Amino acid sequence: MTELRTLKVALLGCGNVGAQVARILIEDADTLAARAGAKLQLSGIAVRDVHAKRDVDLPQDLFTTDADTLVKDADLVIELMGGIEPARTLILSALRNGACVVTGNKALVAQDGPTLHEEADKAGVQLSYEAAVAGAIPILRPIRDSLAGDRITRVLGIVNGTTNFILDQMDTTGAQFADALAEAQRLGYAEADPTADVEGHDAAAKAAILASLSFHTRFALENVHCEGITSVTAADIAAAKDAGFVIKLLAIAEKLPAAGTDADGGEGVSVRVHPTLLPREHPLAAVHGAFNAVFIEAENAGELMFYGQGAGGTPTASAVLGDLVSAARSLVLGGPGRTETTTGQVSALPIDAAVTSYYIGLDVADQPGVLARIAQLFAEHGVSIEIMRQTIHRDAESNVESAELRIVTHRASEAALAATVEAVKGLDVINSVTSVLRVEGV
Amino acid sequence: MTELRTLKVALLGCGNVGAQVARILIEDADTLAARAGAKLQLSGIAVRDVHAKRDVDLPQDLFTTDADTLVKDADLVIELMGGIEPARTLILSALRNGACVVTGNKALVAQDGPTLHEEADKAGVQLSYEAAVAGAIPILRPIRDSLAGDRITRVLGIVNGTTNFILDQMDTTGAQFADALAEAQRLGYAEADPTADVEGHDAAAKAAILASLSFHTRFALENVHCEGITSVTAADIAAAKDAGFVIKLLAIAEKLPAAGTDADGGEGVSVRVHPTLLPREHPLAAVHGAFNAVFIEAENAGELMFYGQGAGGTPTASAVLGDLVSAARSLVLGGPGRTETTTGQVSALPIDAAVTSYYIGLDVADQPGVLARIAQLFAEHGVSIEIMRQTIHRDAESNVESAELRIVTHRASEAALAATVEAVKGLDVINSVTSVLRVEGV
Repeated sequence: MTELRTLKVALLGCGNVGAQVARILIEDADTLAARAGAKLQLSGIAVRDVHAKRDVDLPQDLFTTDADTLVKDADLVIELMGGIEPARTLILSALRNGACVVTGNKALVAQDGPTLHEEADKAGVQLSYEAAVAGAIPILRPIRDSLAGDRITRVLGIVNGTTNFILDQMDTTGAQFADALAEAQRLGYAEADPTADVEGHDAAAKAAILASLSFHTRFALENVHCEGITSVTAADIAAAKDAGFVIKLLAIAEKLPAAGTDADGGEGVSVRVHPTLLPREHPLAAVHGAFNAVFIEAENAGELMFYGQGAGGTPTASAVLGDLVSAARSLVLGGPGRTETTTGQVSALPIDAAVTSYYIGLDVADQPGVLARIAQLFAEHGVSIEIMRQTIHRDAESNVESAELRIVTHRASEAALAATVEAVKGLDVINSVTSVLRVEGV
Repeated sequence: MTELRTLKVALLGCGNVGAQVARILIEDADTLAARAGAKLQLSGIAVRDVHAKRDVDLPQDLFTTDADTLVKDADLVIELMGGIEPARTLILSALRNGACVVTGNKALVAQDGPTLHEEADKAGVQLSYEAAVAGAIPILRPIRDSLAGDRITRVLGIVNGTTNFILDQMDTTGAQFADALAEAQRLGYAEADPTADVEGHDAAAKAAILASLSFHTRFALENVHCEGITSVTAADIAAAKDAGFVIKLLAIAEKLPAAGTDADGGEGVSVRVHPTLLPREHPLAAVHGAFNAVFIEAENAGELMFYGQGAGGTPTASAVLGDLVSAARSLVLGGPGRTETTTGQVSALPIDAAVTSYYIGLDVADQPGVLARIAQLFAEHGVSIEIMRQTIHRDAESNVESAELRIVTHRASEAALAATVEAVKGLDVINSVTSVLRVEGV
C-alpha cells in the first residue's frame, strides 16, 4: 500500500461536540484515514482556557489559545466555537489560506452564509455545515446533491430537540409548559436559560439554512417569521389531542404563489417557525422526545422524511466527521469546492402571505344562531371552514351554560385569518378567543 | 452570464422510469442547467423498438436502436434497461470513453459492482446508482458521504414496496397472502409474475448494495441469505399483532462478532432478507403501503431513518436526476470520480451465525409440566426466553383442550435456535411448531 499523505486538522472549540470530534479523530484515526484517503492529523485545539475541565481526556499538548496560528497551518479547519466572532474571522482566514472548513455554527451560516460561500468558491475549497441543522441527520447534503435534479416544494422540520421534548411531555402527561420545561432542564434537554430554544430562535436559524439550500435562494434570519412555544398551554394540547392533532414546533419553508400573484405571477417562499397542529397519522407526529426529523415534499420525489438525533456531542460529531472526510477526499482527489447553487429566483414572503390551515378555539355564549353568525363571518372574509365542533358545558353551581367552539379551516392566508379573528372578537356572543394555531399536513 | 457548456446525455431504456427521466430532462432543462452548471442535452434514447407506445409523449427523433453509437458520443450515460446484458457492456464502454454513468440497475450493481467501480476509478469518472435502492429516498449518498466519518453497525431496510404493501394489507384487513397479492396486482403494486418481489430476490440485491456501502466491503448476492414472504400466513400476522408486533420483509446487514470469535476475535457482517417481527412502536413499523424506509444504526450518529417512495417512474427519476446533476457538476468542475471506499476488512457471515431474537409459535398438549419441559429445553440449548405466553383453547364440540404457546427469545444464534426447534419438535407434548419468525428492534 502506498504511503498516505497527511492532512493537518485544526479544531476550534472543545465543548460538548468538539471534545467528541477530537476523541474520534484520535481513536478512529486508521478508519478515518482509509475513508479519506489521507491521514487526518489533529494538529491542535484552540480554546479560551487550555486548563479547563473537558468531557473527554485529551492530550494536553494539543491545546492552545492561539487560534490564528493554528488555522494558518491547517489543511482542514473545524469550527465549533459558536457565536459570530471570532468564528467568522477565523473561518474567512482559513478559506483564504486554501483550507476546507467544516462548521456547526448555525447562527453564523444563517447570518453570513453568502460571504462564507463566496470566499470558499474563490479559493476552490469546500465549506460544509451538516452539523448546523438537525445534528446527526444527513439532511443538507441530500438536499444539495440527492435532490439536485428535483424541485422541493415544501420543507417541514422538527429541528429543535428541546422544544420537541417539552411539547411531547405536555402531550403525554398533560403537563403545563413551565413544568415540562423544568423537567427538560432537570434531564439536561434544556439549558438554564432556555430562551434561544423555547422562543424559536434556534429553529429560525436552521429554517433559514434549510430554505436557502432547498430553494437555491439566499434567505436571511430576518426573512424568517418566528414564534416560540411559551404560550402553548396544556389546554391547547388537550384540545388538539381531542381533535386528532399533535402540536409540534415546526421550521417551515414552502413555495407559494407570491402575494399579488395576479399582477406579476411570481412565486415566493414563506419561511417561518411556529407551533403547528399536525394530524396524529402524519410521519412527523411520531417523532418523540428530543429526536429531530425533516419532512420534504418535492415535485418528483414526493414525500421524504429524514429522522435521527438532533443534538448531543457524539451524534453531532458524526455529522462533523462526515463533512471532514468528504472535504479531505476533495483535497486528495482534487475535487471541486463549490458547495451551493444559488440562482435567487424566488422572493421571501412576509408572514401575512403564508397560506395554511388554522385551528381556532372560541368560548361563546350558548344561544341559538351563534354558529350561523360565526360561520357567516368566516365566509365574508373568504376563510372556508372544514370542521366546526361545539361542546356545551354547564356549570354545576351556577347552572349557567357556556359553549366551546372549535374550528379547523381550509387553507387561507394569514392576512385573511387575522382579519377574520379580529371580526369574530367584535361579536357580542364571543366571550373569548382561546386559541389560534396553524395546522399543517391536512 | 457566461455561456454554459453543453453535456450530451444518452438514455438507455425508456420504460416507466426512463420515460419520466426523458420528460424531466426536456421540460426542466433550464433548472437542471442552473443546478449542474452545464446544459444537459438529451442526445438520444436507445430502445429495442423505436415505435413502441410510451407513457410519455417524447420527440420521435430521439429514439434509436443503436445504443453503441449513442454511448460513444455521450458525456453522461443513464442506463435504465435493467438486466445484465447488454447493460453491462454498454456501461463499461461508456466508462472507458470517460463518460459518467448513472444507473438504476440493482441486479447488475449487486453482481458486478466491483468491476464497474474499478473501470470508473480508472477513467476518473463518476458511477452512481442512488435509484437502485429505495427509489426516491436519498440513502446511498448519505451512507457514502454523510456517514463517512462514522461506523455503521446495523442497517434494517424496507426496500421492496410490493411486499410491504402485501404485508400491510394482511395486517390491516386480516387477508391471506394470496388475496393480498391479488389486490396488489389489481392496484399495480405487484407484477403479473411477482416472484422477484415476493421471494425476496429484489430485496436481496438491494441488501447486497446497502451492505457493501455500509461496511466498506464487497458483498455479493450469494452472501445474502434470502427468504420471501410467501409462507407468511394470516395466522402469523394475527399472532404477531396480538403480541404487539408487525411483520415486515426486512433487508438486514449487521456487524456481529464472527463465528468462532473466541479463537480469532474477528468481526463479520450478516446480510439477509427475511420476514421479521418488529415492535409496533419501532419507526419502521409505521411504514405503510408501498413506501420504503431504511433504518440505520451507527456508533456515533445513533439511530437514523430515511423514508419515502421506493418505486414509481417519477419518484425514481428524481434519484436518477440527482445523480446526473452531481455527475455533471464533477465534469464541469473537474472533480473526482472515486465513489466508493472499499477496505474489505469484514467477512460475510453464513446465516447460521446471524444473531437475533425469535418468535416461536407452538401448538402443545394441555398438560401440567409442559411449559417447564419446553423452558428446560431452551435453557439446555443456550437460548434465553424473554416472553412465554400460553393461551388455552377448548373445542366446543369435542370438549378437548389444546394450548397455544408463544415464545419470544432473547438474542440467539440461528444455529442455536435451529437446534432448539429440532429438539422441541421431538417432545411428545408438541402437536406442531406453527411459526418460527425472527424479531428485530427489541
